[in-house]
Amino acid sequence: MSRHRVVTGTPRTDPDVVRGLGELGVATVHEAQGRTGLMHARLRPVYRPARVAGTALTCEVAPGDNAMLHVAVEQARPGDLLVVTPTSPCTDGYFGELLAVSLRAHGVVGLVIDAGVRDTAGLTSMRFPVWSAAVSAQGTVKETAGNVQVPVVCAGQLVRPGDVVLADDDGVVVVARADAPAVLVAARQREERERASLERLAAGALSLDSLGLREKLAGRGLVYEEYGAEPLDRTGAGETA
Amino acid sequence: MSRHRVVTGTPRTDPDVVRGLGELGVATVHEAQGRTGLMHARLRPVYRPARVAGTALTCEVAPGDNAMLHVAVEQARPGDLLVVTPTSPCTDGYFGELLAVSLRAHGVVGLVIDAGVRDTAGLTSMRFPVWSAAVSAQGTVKETAGNVQVPVVCAGQLVRPGDVVLADDDGVVVVARADAPAVLVAARQREERERASLERLAAGALSLDSLGLREKLAGRGLVYEEYGAEPLDRTGAGETA
Amino acid sequence: MSRHRVVTGTPRTDPDVVRGLGELGVATVHEAQGRTGLMHARLRPVYRPARVAGTALTCEVAPGDNAMLHVAVEQARPGDLLVVTPTSPCTDGYFGELLAVSLRAHGVVGLVIDAGVRDTAGLTSMRFPVWSAAVSAQGTVKETAGNVQVPVVCAGQLVRPGDVVLADDDGVVVVARADAPAVLVAARQREERERASLERLAAGALSLDSLGLREKLAGRGLVYEEYGAEPLDRTGAGETA
Amino acid sequence: MSRHRVVTGTPRTDPDVVRGLGELGVATVHEAQGRTGLMHARLRPVYRPARVAGTALTCEVAPGDNAMLHVAVEQARPGDLLVVTPTSPCTDGYFGELLAVSLRAHGVVGLVIDAGVRDTAGLTSMRFPVWSAAVSAQGTVKETAGNVQVPVVCAGQLVRPGDVVLADDDGVVVVARADAPAVLVAARQREERERASLERLAAGALSLDSLGLREKLAGRGLVYEEYGAEPLDRTGAGETA
Amino acid sequence: MSRHRVVTGTPRTDPDVVRGLGELGVATVHEAQGRTGLMHARLRPVYRPARVAGTALTCEVAPGDNAMLHVAVEQARPGDLLVVTPTSPCTDGYFGELLAVSLRAHGVVGLVIDAGVRDTAGLTSMRFPVWSAAVSAQGTVKETAGNVQVPVVCAGQLVRPGDVVLADDDGVVVVARADAPAVLVAARQREERERASLERLAAGALSLDSLGLREKLAGRGLVYEEYGAEPLDRTGAGETA
Amino acid sequence: MSRHRVVTGTPRTDPDVVRGLGELGVATVHEAQGRTGLMHARLRPVYRPARVAGTALTCEVAPGDNAMLHVAVEQARPGDLLVVTPTSPCTDGYFGELLAVSLRAHGVVGLVIDAGVRDTAGLTSMRFPVWSAAVSAQGTVKETAGNVQVPVVCAGQLVRPGDVVLADDDGVVVVARADAPAVLVAARQREERERASLERLAAGALSLDSLGLREKLAGRGLVYEEYGAEPLDRTGAGETA
Repeated sequence: MSRHRVVTGTPRTDPDVVRGLGELGVATVHEAQGRTGLMHARLRPVYRPARVAGTALTCEVAPGDNAMLHVAVEQARPGDLLVVTPTSPCTDGYFGELLAVSLRAHGVVGLVIDAGVRDTAGLTSMRFPVWSAAVSAQGTVKETAGNVQVPVVCAGQLVRPGDVVLADDDGVVVVARADAPAVLVAARQREERERASLERLAAGALSLDSLGLREKLAGRGLVYEEYGAEPLDRTGAGETA
Repeated sequence: MSRHRVVTGTPRTDPDVVRGLGELGVATVHEAQGRTGLMHARLRPVYRPARVAGTALTCEVAPGDNAMLHVAVEQARPGDLLVVTPTSPCTDGYFGELLAVSLRAHGVVGLVIDAGVRDTAGLTSMRFPVWSAAVSAQGTVKETAGNVQVPVVCAGQLVRPGDVVLADDDGVVVVARADAPAVLVAARQREERERASLERLAAGALSLDSLGLREKLAGRGLVYEEYGAEPLDRTGAGETA
Repeated sequence: MSRHRVVTGTPRTDPDVVRGLGELGVATVHEAQGRTGLMHARLRPVYRPARVAGTALTCEVAPGDNAMLHVAVEQARPGDLLVVTPTSPCTDGYFGELLAVSLRAHGVVGLVIDAGVRDTAGLTSMRFPVWSAAVSAQGTVKETAGNVQVPVVCAGQLVRPGDVVLADDDGVVVVARADAPAVLVAARQREERERASLERLAAGALSLDSLGLREKLAGRGLVYEEYGAEPLDRTGAGETA
Repeated sequence: MSRHRVVTGTPRTDPDVVRGLGELGVATVHEAQGRTGLMHARLRPVYRPARVAGTALTCEVAPGDNAMLHVAVEQARPGDLLVVTPTSPCTDGYFGELLAVSLRAHGVVGLVIDAGVRDTAGLTSMRFPVWSAAVSAQGTVKETAGNVQVPVVCAGQLVRPGDVVLADDDGVVVVARADAPAVLVAARQREERERASLERLAAGALSLDSLGLREKLAGRGLVYEEYGAEPLDRTGAGETA
Repeated sequence: MSRHRVVTGTPRTDPDVVRGLGELGVATVHEAQGRTGLMHARLRPVYRPARVAGTALTCEVAPGDNAMLHVAVEQARPGDLLVVTPTSPCTDGYFGELLAVSLRAHGVVGLVIDAGVRDTAGLTSMRFPVWSAAVSAQGTVKETAGNVQVPVVCAGQLVRPGDVVLADDDGVVVVARADAPAVLVAARQREERERASLERLAAGALSLDSLGLREKLAGRGLVYEEYGAEPLDRTGAGETA
Repeated sequence: MSRHRVVTGTPRTDPDVVRGLGELGVATVHEAQGRTGLMHARLRPVYRPARVAGTALTCEVAPGDNAMLHVAVEQARPGDLLVVTPTSPCTDGYFGELLAVSLRAHGVVGLVIDAGVRDTAGLTSMRFPVWSAAVSAQGTVKETAGNVQVPVVCAGQLVRPGDVVLADDDGVVVVARADAPAVLVAARQREERERASLERLAAGALSLDSLGLREKLAGRGLVYEEYGAEPLDRTGAGETA
């Protein structure tokens, strides 16, 4: 039950769909697929601004052990984005400039890791985009087998080989391979609607009206009161002795 | 006891006082009012450097629900700064570019939120200053009533509508409306004293002397010893085997 | 047993060795001394990029009390780097622009503190490099004696007066004074090896081969499987109903 | 603006109301006053089960300094519950057996502190109920003035002298003095309704029906599907290769 | 893409297998399936000791909204264990005595929730076993649709309806339905081996020998040195001035 | 510089002194040695009440790797207490019932570990006292060399082989071997003074007087005011509109 595996020949999402999603923001895509797929907010970019989309090259590692990252490089295909998850929480620096150079040589476009990275000055200089849970110079060993290109849970989301992973300054979202074309269509529509809203709001329109919130909230008990008229302040700040 | 309310017509601090405080730093103002009013350090600016002062437009929201932010926009007056607190801890992205554009259209100068925000690349581009407890693309619903322009506790501090909120790279401080003119005077005096100190210290003077610490600490048991003379090291590091 | 002390005349690491280490990165030096000496990753630079090396001027302070920092300034020698540790966890702003100006006037090259700092905009402007566990405008008192130039534990590492402290965007590492010359030699060798590796990897070589990982991991049970051939997925994601 | 004060002669909530609230649970009272007043969940009881209600004797302390707790004892009246908040986050052990014995001698019924305590074995033996944010043997100094019997923010809630503080295994809730009689009535009603619900639910009734959720959620898009019929699983787990 | 669903008629693991796993510990079962399936250690039991195994009844909820728990009750079958995960981090008290009574009436054996619960004194009295990420009296609303009996990620692990969930004082582990019979066999074998080891170790045997670690670690550079003979201590503590 | 070592023949503190310290509490001993030596409050006992003192048997381990614990057992002498620190933060379960049985067979009296443990029900049953930073069933590998019986930093404190480690419900304190006899004397004196204080305080005496705090705090600006007389409340809660 605990064989460690490297799965080869896994399918990947159509590059045109990946490219299309890469032109949109994480928040937009997350909304377009029904507010799903967002990784935990502990994943932060090493430098900002940054934005990238790629097909997931998944990798599961032991705590403090980056042996499997070296295995993953060989499985990389151009357009892949490496997704690394440790089997238990770890902030060590699994990844640095050497691995970034190696991944780039094999066409990998970025890294998402629910653990630590190092050489952040170098990663920033070479503009290799990385989202990580920590920055730490702590080195790792290369002793333990893990898994490459199997479904993994990374920062709270299931990621399968070939899924689209999109990351920007707001965080990281996963789009399942089978859903990606439809999500792209929905996300583009959403972006267009947002652009129209933006113009109206910039001109002073109230979203309270356009969203129909005035009635809804009144129906849920929201009242308006003139200042000074309130008899009792529930935080007590207006109470007189 | 749990009516949700929007209080209208709340008074605001004199704009000249707000402007004056906005020229000073958070640390200076916090000191000038007796080391009070500082929000928790988990609030961090979305981009740096940033500095802004405004009159508090307060808003209390349910976790994962930003309906009341849309209500708050209507209550905004030029020079306001939106202060948002969730009723329980939440890192979701309550606020993004659309709301920023809308607030700016109504003269609001910034946002302080003890929760998450998103569209951080956009907020940075448009230079809308935001201090938040988290960055997360996670969307919110619009279902639950809350409160606008009532006294709230945000990141550990009581904020009342119309109070001054001052934020910079160091964090966020609240100055009560009634205290603001006096705090401004005290803060300006402090800043002048600091400028004078700065010159003396840059010239090599010791604050140990100017602060009278030499005698005070001697009185509290501080001794000077030559290296190598110490018989026993309480961390044990000097102990011989 | 609890005398508070300032130890004078402590020895310092040879400036040439410090300078040499300062040209290398934290990750490299940490590896070169056997993956030891790294402070906890909660210490982050106030601005990036930043890199500095200095001889430790150690200082132990009470929570919320920075009296001993003023004592430390007098003990500073050019090339020192101030290392501050509180006796219990504290995020208050112990340090700001005034102390930075004062330290710089005495030749101190930077600060590492397992607590908070403030005036971060000022520190950034004057390019005084600081690594801290927090940013907070919260002021401190000056009431309690502590220790200067005694061995301290800072962010999980023992630091003794005169040890080398090296800090960059990845974190902070301590090199014991007696070890520093040998660590410098080892770190330079490592850097050279890394430069050679970098070239090979940029050309597409696989570290899997150069590190001999292929056989090692096979011996620890790693197998390769063609996609679609796997009968059972341990995350269950491939299981059919 | 930063005078430190002890306010004497502050009013307290009617003891009968306090006693009444003390017979109810924190969750019930929190609900009865509109889901307000709950302190942050980081406050945990030193031993369980525990339940107590008292009138707030408020105390604001410096980090690592418990001088003001000794001041607070003198202000205690029978039925008070000591509420302590530090001016910045601190986990030190402000309070132990000696102060517990002293408080009990003056009729104080418990302690709520957004910081640390020690002597927890002793506190448990003598059954003095304490809710704290930490347990730590770390001692504190007695150097800095603070405030007693002024309004404070403790663990995110405004507490004013004489308010009711109710604590049990679930946490701590504050009831404003002026609201307390009405909250007691509402809470008792709520408890009765809950007792009735409990019986129905124990008999197998579905809250889905009694709460009218079936229609509400259908209206918000909830659908029922037979297993095996779903064409696409958004977590991807049902997707075929 | 964001339809919210209740899936009916999902298969469950064979009750005999569930019962068998329930007689073993979480650590044993986790090891027996190759150190996989363990939920994050933030999930802690409300009372100890506690141990339970059941078939997963999965439920995905919005932050601060427990509407879907009421929906889940109707889907419960005897032997189920409710597994609840919020769509973003939330510590609110989603669950209390009423829902526990209701679940028990439908044969549910326990709850695992990556969020908060309340009425912990009541849950303890009625011995309804609960593992949660927080205890909080904070109430929730009932406004938003979610999912029941779909695959979810809970505390870092994929859980599918009908999988076995086993929880004890050490935490919570998931066993995929298809794997469960084989895991049970392996876990029983492991337990037997451990019992034999226990006897040998109790008699003073060294695991260093039985595990063959002596040679392995020597091969990886471990040396034995007599105290006092070491010339240099890498923590520096043995260094002479 | 990174040789991994087991140091044999290290000296230990006199057993009578250890026994003496074991009769006192952690808080008392920590105070008696000048508020030093206390480990971080994240270390908590697996069961309460618990109290133990022993001579430190130190062990430094890699993250997720417990090989060195097996090495440590062989170095154990009756009266030792095992102190384990990982080289980087890790919450895995390094230690369970098997190792506890083995340690007990060699006379070891307890465990302090700045990482995770498992089999907590078993450890509780057999009353083997453990203080840990986490509880987790996550297994570890046995691949990497570390150090035994060298000076280590554990939870923020330097511990050297043979030092006294004392742990109770409040936490863990280290007493250096050379200091131990004097600390024992001081701690016993302190305990006696506390017993006397306890009696006075139980009779209603005010520590405010016995500690001379009344004058000290008055000198630092503390004033007493009658309720209702205060013109301005710095938290603003008393301000009138």
